[in-house]
This record gives sequence, C-alpha cells and structure tokens, in this order.
Amino acid sequence: MSEPRLIGVDWGTTSFRAVLMDGDGAILDRTASGDGLLSVTDRGFEAVLERAVGGWDRARALPVIASGMVTSRSGWVETAYLPCPAGAAELAGALTRFTTEGGRRIALITGLSFRHADGAPDVMRGEETQIASLRLAGTRLAVMPGTHSKWVRVEDGRITAFRTAMTGDAFAALRDHTVLKLTTAERADAPEAFAAGVALGAAESGAGLLGKLFRQRAGSLLGDFPASETAERLSGLLIGTEIAEARHFAPDVSGSMVIVGGEALAARYAAALDVLGIAHETAPADAAFAGQVRIAVAAGLV
Amino acid sequence: MSEPRLIGVDWGTTSFRAVLMDGDGAILDRTASGDGLLSVTDRGFEAVLERAVGGWDRARALPVIASGMVTSRSGWVETAYLPCPAGAAELAGALTRFTTEGGRRIALITGLSFRHADGAPDVMRGEETQIASLRLAGTRLAVMPGTHSKWVRVEDGRITAFRTAMTGDAFAALRDHTVLKLTTAERADAPEAFAAGVALGAAESGAGLLGKLFRQRAGSLLGDFPASETAERLSGLLIGTEIAEARHFAPDVSGSMVIVGGEALAARYAAALDVLGIAHETAPADAAFAGQVRIAVAAGLV
Repeated sequence: MSEPRLIGVDWGTTSFRAVLMDGDGAILDRTASGDGLLSVTDRGFEAVLERAVGGWDRARALPVIASGMVTSRSGWVETAYLPCPAGAAELAGALTRFTTEGGRRIALITGLSFRHADGAPDVMRGEETQIASLRLAGTRLAVMPGTHSKWVRVEDGRITAFRTAMTGDAFAALRDHTVLKLTTAERADAPEAFAAGVALGAAESGAGLLGKLFRQRAGSLLGDFPASETAERLSGLLIGTEIAEARHFAPDVSGSMVIVGGEALAARYAAALDVLGIAHETAPADAAFAGQVRIAVAAGLV
Repeated sequence: MSEPRLIGVDWGTTSFRAVLMDGDGAILDRTASGDGLLSVTDRGFEAVLERAVGGWDRARALPVIASGMVTSRSGWVETAYLPCPAGAAELAGALTRFTTEGGRRIALITGLSFRHADGAPDVMRGEETQIASLRLAGTRLAVMPGTHSKWVRVEDGRITAFRTAMTGDAFAALRDHTVLKLTTAERADAPEAFAAGVALGAAESGAGLLGKLFRQRAGSLLGDFPASETAERLSGLLIGTEIAEARHFAPDVSGSMVIVGGEALAARYAAALDVLGIAHETAPADAAFAGQVRIAVAAGLV
C-alpha cells in the first residue's frame, strides 16, 4: 500500500473536503463536511481541521496543503492575489506556510488576479489549483461552471488569462427575484427548452441579454411555451450567453474546451456546448487535490 | 372653468391614480392611492374605483377610461394584446367597453404585442397609452424607464415596433441577491461611478454583461473603487447595456430620443444618454392621461 505523504484540503465558504494522499496524488482516504469557513467561530480553523483529518495522522507529521476561500478575507489567512501568468511553479513559490500552535505544517495556495486589456480586473481563488492539475499541451480554454464561472486560457500549463461570468449567481437571483419567479417555481425537466435557451443566448443578433430576459416572460404570456419551461429556458439563455461571451474572450483558441469541476453543472455545460457544436472534454474528478499535489511537489513539500 | 368630461384612471399592480379632465385633457382634479390591483379583494374593482372618483361625479354621468395592468390577468377584465402597428385610432377601436352594475360607463385600453424579426415576442400594457400622448412627426425612438423598460419605435404617431429590457427588475435582483449584495447595501451618491458604469455597459468590447457584472465584485476586491460605489456602478452598467441593446434595435432612427414617464428614473436615463452623447428630450408629465383623452376622443367617448 502507498504511504501517506500529504493531506489536501479544499476549504470553501460553505463546505470542507479533505483527502489523504500518497506522493503521487493517489487518494487513500477522504472526508467531507459542511464545516465551511462561514461556520468557523472565534477563528477556530485549526480545531475544525484537526477534527476532520487528525485521525489520519495523530502525530501531525504530514503537511497540509489547502486551497479555496481559505485564503480570502473570511478565511484562515487572507493572502494577496498572484498576478497571471501563473502555473504550479509560481503557485508553489507563493505558498503561505506556517506551523500551527499544535505543530501542524500548513501551506495555503493563494488565488490569481488578471487585468483585461481594458484594465478591468478579474480574480479567482481555488480554481487556479484545479487548473494546475491539467496536463494540456499548447493553448487551451477551460471552463469551470459555477456560481461565478471561470473561463481560463491555459498556455503550456500556465494560466495566462481568465474571465469570470456571474452566471449561476445571476441565474438564481433572476429566477427567484424578478417577474420570472411567477413561472419558475414549477420546474419541468425540459431538455428542448434548455437547448432553445442556449441557442437564443448565443445568437449574436444584437437583441441583448436584458431584452432576451424579458422574452422569457412575454413568451409565457403569449403561450409560445408552457410556463413550466421558463426555468430551463432561463438556464439555457444564461449559459448560452456566457459561452458566446467566452468566444469573444478567446477567439484564437482551438482544440476542444475542457470542462473542469462544476459537478452537476458540468453535464449542463456539456449539453450547452453540444447545442452549439463546440467540441469538449471533461477533466478527471478531484482536480483540486490533483493540483495540490503538483504544487506541493513543486514546493518540495513532498 | 372647463367642464368635466372624462375620468382617467391609471391602474397598476401596486398603485391607483385618477384624474378628472375636460374634453381637451386639461386636468381639473386628481387623486392617488396604493389601491393597486393586487390589493383588490373579491373582485371589488368597482367599489375601489367609486371610492376614489365618486366624489367628482355622484350621478355617474362621466365615462371612465382606464389603462395599465387593469387589463391583465390580475385586473378587472383580461383583454388580448393588440398587435402592432397601433396608435390612438387602433387602441380606440379595441376598447373593452361595459357599464357597471352601478351604472358607470367603463372603457379599458388594452396592451400591445409585437413579434421581433426572429419570432421572439414582446408585450406592453399601459405604455401604449403614454405613447399615444406624443405628437411626434416622422420616425422616433421613445424610451420608457422602469422595472421593464420599453423602447418604442413611433412612426407618424403609431407604434410600429418595441422591445422590453428587464433592466430595473434585474437591477434589484442582482443588487440584493448576488455576491454584489456584500457591497451594495451602503449606497453613495456617486455620479462619476454611475457614468463609469454606463460607459462600461455600452462598450461593445465583447466582454459581455455576465463578465461585466463580476467585474463589479472584482474591482471592489482589488481596490479599484470604493465598495460604496458598487450600487451606482451596477445601475450605470445595466442602463448603459440597455441603451447599447436599443441601438441595435433601431439603428436607423435619428432625432433625439424621447424619455417618457419613469418619474425618478427619467433623470437617471437622461444622465446616461448624456454620458453617451445621445440627444434626448423629456415628454410632458401625465402622459398616460394625455393619451387616454386622445383615445377617448378617437372612440367618440367625449
């Protein structure tokens, strides 16, 4: 059996996941809980961590490497964003390392910032580690579905640019807190409605998203589609819009898009890319932990 | 003193406004309340109406003409949308007329529907009456700020096309129910932040609205602007986006844009149009009642 060498932690605002790994990143054991950063009181980060992973290593001999919102303002240590371009080597060089009072060695992976050509800012925390897991040659585009979806340009393994789309966050707000809430409460499984929404969102007719949003109300009023399809149409509309925006972001990138993470959302994005005839592949699960091992190796932690 | 000839009612979901007018539309008296359609129980529309306007005309000799959501599903009588093109004459021909049990003559103005070139639907209820008040030669574009802003193409006094943007509705949902709520609670008066948002929204850089939305979070995190400016930036971003979308809708229309209604929002739209160097003028207040008189005259009610 492989020897445990590293504990990896993916610590988010509302969730905690940890794995015990060998030096090659093989996962020997895992745990997960709802002990997200927001639930930690009195800065009791160490206690939450040891409660979850202490059973693997009572001697506290193994280093912990962590990524995600654990380095945000509401996290254990707030760290500055690292500017792009950055890959595993730059992330390894920017680790925040310390030893807890209990004697546990901790290494925190910081997030990245990027300035678009027009000066507009973008940030990520956690996704950089997932991207570090990918073994991609040349220049590729990765999409990371989520509340704030990331579209990441990866050149020879390093992140050179990225953009964030507020898709999931906007979807929930528009579904539940605009006039659309009158017809989105009942949500039918309607793949064709989703596909129609994707096509409308990606259509560059100049109609614009604010207009397309209202059409989801007008179409229901005029009987163009059943009210119960509104939520799926809205979901498709926003994801289709996001994909069209991303095409402008990286028009020169060829090769299939790589869907990373996103869990249940990944299938939805795959379906949307199919609607638009865009080739795609899905990265292996546990990208966060696979990225952590690569960064830990680059930093000499294991 | 002019003789009362007509009672005009603008009956919305959450508000009730009525005026007493002479045959030329001069307003002799007015009343307003929160007796919107949603507050009417047991279909007691007539009682609410007479409580508001009965004092002007105990004999119920004057006709009432009403517009707004009073003809929607939650209104007094649900009426079908009239297709474009339509002006005062077509609206007069499509009035729903009846006499109440109490003997009051009622005429309800229905709303309009429109099909965009790609088949997508659009609807309005109430705005058609405000537009009927305008005396515009040639082809002009009117903007009606609101929860669901309308952009209306008016040709020789008739509405030939229109589009709706879910701007105000989306603004409130995004401000209060996404990550932006963390920095929009405190709202500074910041005209420059609003102007910067307008410029970003109208910029056709291909960045896209879903990306621009997240920049309002990233910019605050990176210290590009004070968090307290986020709400004004968001407001500008959405209005700027809406104006850019409308340019695609009616690229051939020249002449200054006409801002109709919208009350407090009208000044905000005027400021946004100034930022973008677009000439504009503001229609007289009480456009709904002025439109009602024209339609009533066309229908022979007065």
